[in-house]
Amino acid sequence: MPLTTDQQQEIEAARAAEGRTRRPVAPGLEALLYQAVPVLDHGFVRVIDYMGDDAAVVQAARVSYGRGTRAANEDRGLIRYLMRHRHSTPFEMCEIKFHVKLPIFIARQWIRHRTANVNEYSARYSILDREFYIPAPEQLAAQSTANRQGRGEVLAGEEAARVLDLLRGDAMQTYDHYAWMLNEDADGTPLDPGRQGLARELARMNLTLNTYTQWYWKTNLHNLFHFLALRSDTHAQYEIRVYADAMLEMVKAWVPACHEAFVDYRMGAATFSAGMLGVVRRLLAGEAVEQPGSGLSKREWRELMETLGRPVA
Amino acid sequence: MPLTTDQQQEIEAARAAEGRTRRPVAPGLEALLYQAVPVLDHGFVRVIDYMGDDAAVVQAARVSYGRGTRAANEDRGLIRYLMRHRHSTPFEMCEIKFHVKLPIFIARQWIRHRTANVNEYSARYSILDREFYIPAPEQLAAQSTANRQGRGEVLAGEEAARVLDLLRGDAMQTYDHYAWMLNEDADGTPLDPGRQGLARELARMNLTLNTYTQWYWKTNLHNLFHFLALRSDTHAQYEIRVYADAMLEMVKAWVPACHEAFVDYRMGAATFSAGMLGVVRRLLAGEAVEQPGSGLSKREWRELMETLGRPVA
Amino acid sequence: MPLTTDQQQEIEAARAAEGRTRRPVAPGLEALLYQAVPVLDHGFVRVIDYMGDDAAVVQAARVSYGRGTRAANEDRGLIRYLMRHRHSTPFEMCEIKFHVKLPIFIARQWIRHRTANVNEYSARYSILDREFYIPAPEQLAAQSTANRQGRGEVLAGEEAARVLDLLRGDAMQTYDHYAWMLNEDADGTPLDPGRQGLARELARMNLTLNTYTQWYWKTNLHNLFHFLALRSDTHAQYEIRVYADAMLEMVKAWVPACHEAFVDYRMGAATFSAGMLGVVRRLLAGEAVEQPGSGLSKREWRELMETLGRPVA
Amino acid sequence: MPLTTDQQQEIEAARAAEGRTRRPVAPGLEALLYQAVPVLDHGFVRVIDYMGDDAAVVQAARVSYGRGTRAANEDRGLIRYLMRHRHSTPFEMCEIKFHVKLPIFIARQWIRHRTANVNEYSARYSILDREFYIPAPEQLAAQSTANRQGRGEVLAGEEAARVLDLLRGDAMQTYDHYAWMLNEDADGTPLDPGRQGLARELARMNLTLNTYTQWYWKTNLHNLFHFLALRSDTHAQYEIRVYADAMLEMVKAWVPACHEAFVDYRMGAATFSAGMLGVVRRLLAGEAVEQPGSGLSKREWRELMETLGRPVA
Repeated sequence: MPLTTDQQQEIEAARAAEGRTRRPVAPGLEALLYQAVPVLDHGFVRVIDYMGDDAAVVQAARVSYGRGTRAANEDRGLIRYLMRHRHSTPFEMCEIKFHVKLPIFIARQWIRHRTANVNEYSARYSILDREFYIPAPEQLAAQSTANRQGRGEVLAGEEAARVLDLLRGDAMQTYDHYAWMLNEDADGTPLDPGRQGLARELARMNLTLNTYTQWYWKTNLHNLFHFLALRSDTHAQYEIRVYADAMLEMVKAWVPACHEAFVDYRMGAATFSAGMLGVVRRLLAGEAVEQPGSGLSKREWRELMETLGRPVA
Repeated sequence: MPLTTDQQQEIEAARAAEGRTRRPVAPGLEALLYQAVPVLDHGFVRVIDYMGDDAAVVQAARVSYGRGTRAANEDRGLIRYLMRHRHSTPFEMCEIKFHVKLPIFIARQWIRHRTANVNEYSARYSILDREFYIPAPEQLAAQSTANRQGRGEVLAGEEAARVLDLLRGDAMQTYDHYAWMLNEDADGTPLDPGRQGLARELARMNLTLNTYTQWYWKTNLHNLFHFLALRSDTHAQYEIRVYADAMLEMVKAWVPACHEAFVDYRMGAATFSAGMLGVVRRLLAGEAVEQPGSGLSKREWRELMETLGRPVA
Repeated sequence: MPLTTDQQQEIEAARAAEGRTRRPVAPGLEALLYQAVPVLDHGFVRVIDYMGDDAAVVQAARVSYGRGTRAANEDRGLIRYLMRHRHSTPFEMCEIKFHVKLPIFIARQWIRHRTANVNEYSARYSILDREFYIPAPEQLAAQSTANRQGRGEVLAGEEAARVLDLLRGDAMQTYDHYAWMLNEDADGTPLDPGRQGLARELARMNLTLNTYTQWYWKTNLHNLFHFLALRSDTHAQYEIRVYADAMLEMVKAWVPACHEAFVDYRMGAATFSAGMLGVVRRLLAGEAVEQPGSGLSKREWRELMETLGRPVA
Repeated sequence: MPLTTDQQQEIEAARAAEGRTRRPVAPGLEALLYQAVPVLDHGFVRVIDYMGDDAAVVQAARVSYGRGTRAANEDRGLIRYLMRHRHSTPFEMCEIKFHVKLPIFIARQWIRHRTANVNEYSARYSILDREFYIPAPEQLAAQSTANRQGRGEVLAGEEAARVLDLLRGDAMQTYDHYAWMLNEDADGTPLDPGRQGLARELARMNLTLNTYTQWYWKTNLHNLFHFLALRSDTHAQYEIRVYADAMLEMVKAWVPACHEAFVDYRMGAATFSAGMLGVVRRLLAGEAVEQPGSGLSKREWRELMETLGRPVA
């Protein structure tokens, strides 16, 4: 469980305090607000705040004066149209803020998404907790042989056990040395008054990349969908995908019509080049197209056949 | 009055509909929500939605789990510290969305601020209203002789009257021709069934730059402060400054502690170069520094003296 | 011809001055550098500067120390792979700067692309030239009846003639009044010493939206491709598409391998939702799928059939 | 020495290959191009490419057709004016691309500057080198007692020796275990054919934060100045400041007039709030102002007195 009792109580207090507002309210997300959804062994993601709902997207697309009186069905149709045709600006009108606890090596991947606002817990200023990510045995995968950037079979037996021992041992040892170098307790009191203690901004360099950090991460719905399309995808690294999957559920509770359109038109969607499209048309016309005469490279042909559910042997 | 009765009723309906939320609520801004504050002759600005409050800035700076139990005074102190030392990321954690009606030539200035989300009423898709900005007589200024980018004395007499006539006449004539070229009423029905009507995306080019447009404009508090620092300033063009001034009042109602820090540390603040700072130190030490021996150019010297309240004759 | 003799001479002088550099050089683009390609009746686009070439994209993807010794063919393959799989960051490593002269209503569309650096000629500070866009007769299209945001047939006869007269007449009249209100010649000397002249920042509001402006516009190759994918497309308004088309030719001269990959994988590409993909698979399997049992809406079905070259009657 | 012989040869080859260009050339930077300037124990920074020069800033501010015929002195004056008055867009017209090798914990600080293009060496795809940052003895500072985010005295004797041993020992051990878990040599051949080897994307998590990474980092001159103002500053962490200092020298070679203006107006500059400015005016008028009657808090008063060179005892 990633939260201390104090933290859990702060969250409960925040959840208990309701107020009145004239702003749009998304009931589904209100129900989840502030709650930490566990991810990995010590991480979590939780929604801290949000702005807007499905109707706000519609309202922005129409630059209207009020929430309008259109049928919900018309709104859904417009949202689907906007998503299908990549009209992105109305989706930028909704905003969401997450609090995320995550391993540093995943934070480094995540931060590549530049169009977000971030406040990270500072190890220059504060002391990090003694928490590291250790993969569950079923996630201890070998390097893929087909893909330089992917995983293959799960490790087993001796090798798996040894890997887990090394990860755990090194993380604990480097953390203990970090703590020794700092020479201070949580209040900043020296542990050993005979020593000065290394500056926090230096000592942190001894930690391993699976140490947990945390941040506030705020973005708009359009940029969030871009993040989710890349990270809630089978090609994404498992350790970031589990965060994306949890966030996608929160999006569903927040803006159900946008979520539905996203799932229908972007998850599982495939882009065909003009050349691939030509092959599809020829196939539909009954022609027996083969790679050599297709105008596609072998690699493109293989990708196309996989997309069409006809994987090349 | 910039709003139709229908629009006013939509706004009243939105104001009347209150809901419950677990999110932070800013009571001062709730009171103003949706209301259109008139700006210029036909424009307005109104807040459509917001996220966060003063405490959200503090919370982000601390990456905390709850709203905390610190004294309000401590929060205010931290906000002032963050503002003074340009720690900008915590201010990015608050977001606000405006609906603005403004003349096109001002919209062109405004849009230079790129770090915002915008949905503008589309004259490619829809028909613009017959509304133009005509300056009030006291705003009809001559070109400044001192500053190529500024205003001098107010025009008077014949010239002023003629300018107003020209502005009004040209705007009305070009709009009438726009309407004739479109050849359609509000529902898209041809006015003259014998004509086809020019495409909207073309006809709009006949409008003058003082025609009103409108948009939804959403930004975070940090970027908004940057906008306000530049536009709610005596060097800004009057026609954009009045919008910035109205928005600054809304910020005050929304995040009073941030607003206070902004006014204290950024409005009316002055930046001194290392060279200027050296001159100030010498002056404070009682030295009778003059421009020639100051190390500053004549222009820099004049700027410094003005900032110090000792304008050069 | 959009350039004065002086401007043409400045361009020739810039073209004549060659220097030596250790940087990557793109010979195809060097040949075009500084030259103004005419667009519309008075506009142009020209390349002012650039950074990088095809090899720079490859080099960034590999984070390498030199230009490498790989075969050109391998580089081309990698570029095509990056484009096909939307690995965008290597394309961000090339940068290009354009000087564009364009009508204001097109500038307003263009500026929506926020991820670029812009310096626009300031009508607050300077005086705009007496140049307006008047569509060629074959571009004088009626409003589309099928698409609220498009063009239909070309206007003809009386109506066309009248439209051109109105556009031309209004542009000239409003410009003449603009000049009268300014009351100054190019050097700032009052035309009529008995008048003060209206401030430039105000007088400009009397101009129509087809008046030409100009700017320096600088962006990276990834963002440029995004711009070109949207604007060099049949759904884009003709008046911005002609600029995009001219720029696409410059990209071809600059980074031929990237251009080829862009044309193959993004121009003319189509994205299929998971639902559409399912229909394609069923059709390929020989099933006689109709809209009612397809799981697609009528609109989606029509869009799919058009993409597959089987338009619905 | 951070470079291998191969890398050094690749750099020499790139430096030897000169071409002709019509683009602006900055001779000072050409002389430095591609050369790696050593930073810290194994890091470096080098310029890979650049666009523009001092004249390009001037040209953009004027939106001109050529390089102009103005005196160099006039250009310098305009650049200084633009810098002093924070007219940032002309500086955005110059672009520079660096190749940087740096410890991961510094890369994490650096990446907060979002307005740049980045391609980082991927430890998901490739294997990191066995290189870690170990501070020089004179950089082994204790935690500051005055500033939670700073350094105090340098550690000495036993404690210093022990810290260096721990940093070195942990980095080497975790790297060795990383290599063991990967179970592959540089070509991907298994070291021990009886094992599968852990996926690279997982094994990397065992590395410490002082491991070196590298990236291509490209930004425009305005954003670079913002980066340098924050990072080439006494409040910046030493380990990032040394990179910023090296880059500032490169900027001097590239755009000497912009560099001079930056140093004069932004380095060592101080911003005074309206309240502080009031105190300065009263002091200059000969008034004996003390903190209690100044309207400033104790903290603000102390900051002001320090800036004025009159530190409070």
